[in-house]
Amino acid sequence: ASQPATKHPGLTEFVGTAVGDSIGIVIANLDPKLHEMLGYDPKYRSIGILSSRTGAGPHILAVDEAVKATNTEVISIELARDTKGGAGHGSLIILGAEEVSDARRGIEVALKDLQRTFGDVYANDAGHIELQYTARASYACNKAFGAPIGRAFGLCVGAPAGIGVEMVDAAVKSADVDLLGISSPAKGTSFSNEVIGFFSGDAGAVRQAVVTAREIGVKLLGTLGSEPKTDGTPYI
Amino acid sequence: ASQPATKHPGLTEFVGTAVGDSIGIVIANLDPKLHEMLGYDPKYRSIGILSSRTGAGPHILAVDEAVKATNTEVISIELARDTKGGAGHGSLIILGAEEVSDARRGIEVALKDLQRTFGDVYANDAGHIELQYTARASYACNKAFGAPIGRAFGLCVGAPAGIGVEMVDAAVKSADVDLLGISSPAKGTSFSNEVIGFFSGDAGAVRQAVVTAREIGVKLLGTLGSEPKTDGTPYI
Amino acid sequence: ASQPATKHPGLTEFVGTAVGDSIGIVIANLDPKLHEMLGYDPKYRSIGILSSRTGAGPHILAVDEAVKATNTEVISIELARDTKGGAGHGSLIILGAEEVSDARRGIEVALKDLQRTFGDVYANDAGHIELQYTARASYACNKAFGAPIGRAFGLCVGAPAGIGVEMVDAAVKSADVDLLGISSPAKGTSFSNEVIGFFSGDAGAVRQAVVTAREIGVKLLGTLGSEPKTDGTPYI
Repeated sequence: ASQPATKHPGLTEFVGTAVGDSIGIVIANLDPKLHEMLGYDPKYRSIGILSSRTGAGPHILAVDEAVKATNTEVISIELARDTKGGAGHGSLIILGAEEVSDARRGIEVALKDLQRTFGDVYANDAGHIELQYTARASYACNKAFGAPIGRAFGLCVGAPAGIGVEMVDAAVKSADVDLLGISSPAKGTSFSNEVIGFFSGDAGAVRQAVVTAREIGVKLLGTLGSEPKTDGTPYI
Repeated sequence: ASQPATKHPGLTEFVGTAVGDSIGIVIANLDPKLHEMLGYDPKYRSIGILSSRTGAGPHILAVDEAVKATNTEVISIELARDTKGGAGHGSLIILGAEEVSDARRGIEVALKDLQRTFGDVYANDAGHIELQYTARASYACNKAFGAPIGRAFGLCVGAPAGIGVEMVDAAVKSADVDLLGISSPAKGTSFSNEVIGFFSGDAGAVRQAVVTAREIGVKLLGTLGSEPKTDGTPYI
Repeated sequence: ASQPATKHPGLTEFVGTAVGDSIGIVIANLDPKLHEMLGYDPKYRSIGILSSRTGAGPHILAVDEAVKATNTEVISIELARDTKGGAGHGSLIILGAEEVSDARRGIEVALKDLQRTFGDVYANDAGHIELQYTARASYACNKAFGAPIGRAFGLCVGAPAGIGVEMVDAAVKSADVDLLGISSPAKGTSFSNEVIGFFSGDAGAVRQAVVTAREIGVKLLGTLGSEPKTDGTPYI
């Protein structure tokens, strides 16, 4: 996946851009009226913003790494119905920090990690499938999916949604994982055309579940169009 | 409408594909944990899945025929905000059966019937209108629209939504039908840009209402672009 | 922005079309069953319909002028998740009137004013920003945004949503305005990929806030693609 050379807009708030029409921004001192209206904890003087047109899973997993590596916390995760005409979500993730340098560092880590976390998104003209995996879930995966912190965590997405149902079923049959939840167009998504399953458990089992879902998903999505491809490098 | 030759993914769960980026899948024995999380009645050992990027009305009407013709029941109907950048929905419909052969037969019937039920979808670059009609509504139309079972049922869709308002008004003025309901972007749709009216009554009256809506809808949508066309064969 | 020459569909209900795949329609006497089901006040015998695939802010501000200039009232404002694959909304706005001539006049005024209110929408392949301003808010801005009637009102939109957060923060810091509210993908939008801030106050302050948001928004959106451009003529 090619990443555009970052253009500098001449604003100190700008951090960078990345794949998926993703942009990172920091605000050193959020306006007090705005801070209160948004309901953020007063201890976060600074916020970091990660926003994208395409992708929610990649951004949540990238932020999960960012909060492990930096002195930031996840304030909110909102999913738009987007992907620029595709079947999925865009995302708006807010990090909180006491110092703007921490907020900036958190967003930098997340932006850089997106190249990795987009690695297992496979698409064709008819839809997409997505896989994510981490050996040790942190606060972003906990907030978005109820993932137990410190344990292995994985998710699989199928779009159109019916493909996701079969991916989740195959995944949980293939390995001894805890099925944490399942989201569908009318339940737990922003009316996206996706079914999303998320799993916790031992690292080997979670990885096996995700790999099984990938095999099934690529085959099923391929029946609706060309061979599904990733623009990146698979990491799972 | 051309239908792609079905590719076989080498999975027993795969049933087939159809117009609208539609895919049919069966699961012989849904994983027990998944079954419970989805809240499905335990009597349905097997499920059939009909999922699409484009189309909700065509899929609900096709499934309505499928449940008449096979030993299956409608478990759930969910509408994604989709149509690949268009103004409408995609769909995820789950059928339940005691035997996988029944689930497969139900999905086969529905996939085949989509060619018919897409017949009265007329589109141009600005939007679409859609008409559906059945002389005898069954359980899918009942679940999705509250259609009285066994009576004639029809619906009309206009997108952008304002066209649908005028279609519904003209339809109910043109024939003595029961107006069962009306859906709009913020009420009863998944924020699609549609107004949908649904009618019950005597067969001749329902058909007249739908035909009137079609005449009005084609004219209004045509003011925003080219002459609205169907990719299929009108059936009403 | 070029506006297509209006095609006449030969329906008395048709009023006209405008930019944004917008259509205007009037119904002289809404069907009584439909009127009741929609829950409209019986005093509105006639309704005017303004519906679009692309744009909500431009339509609300245009209708705000229409209700000032004509004998009509705003019955409802619904926002679809649309913009034809873009990040924003389409709209369905219903005006009520006692006489169809008033409803028609209201829709005519709104359709004509869209050319102006689309003037400060700046887009590129990655998203859009939008600004609106009025020296004297009326009933449409009041209904949609809680704008105090008779006072200056402004709004700013950023998409992808993160750009909007920074626009709102910069706007409220730049001038002494009342921040009436902020909408985001999961709160107050139809899951659009936008953050929208809306302001009230003295005319000069509101205008300053909006101008600041525009400067910031154009710079940030430009980092994701080409220089954001308007198809129209800026009016603020």
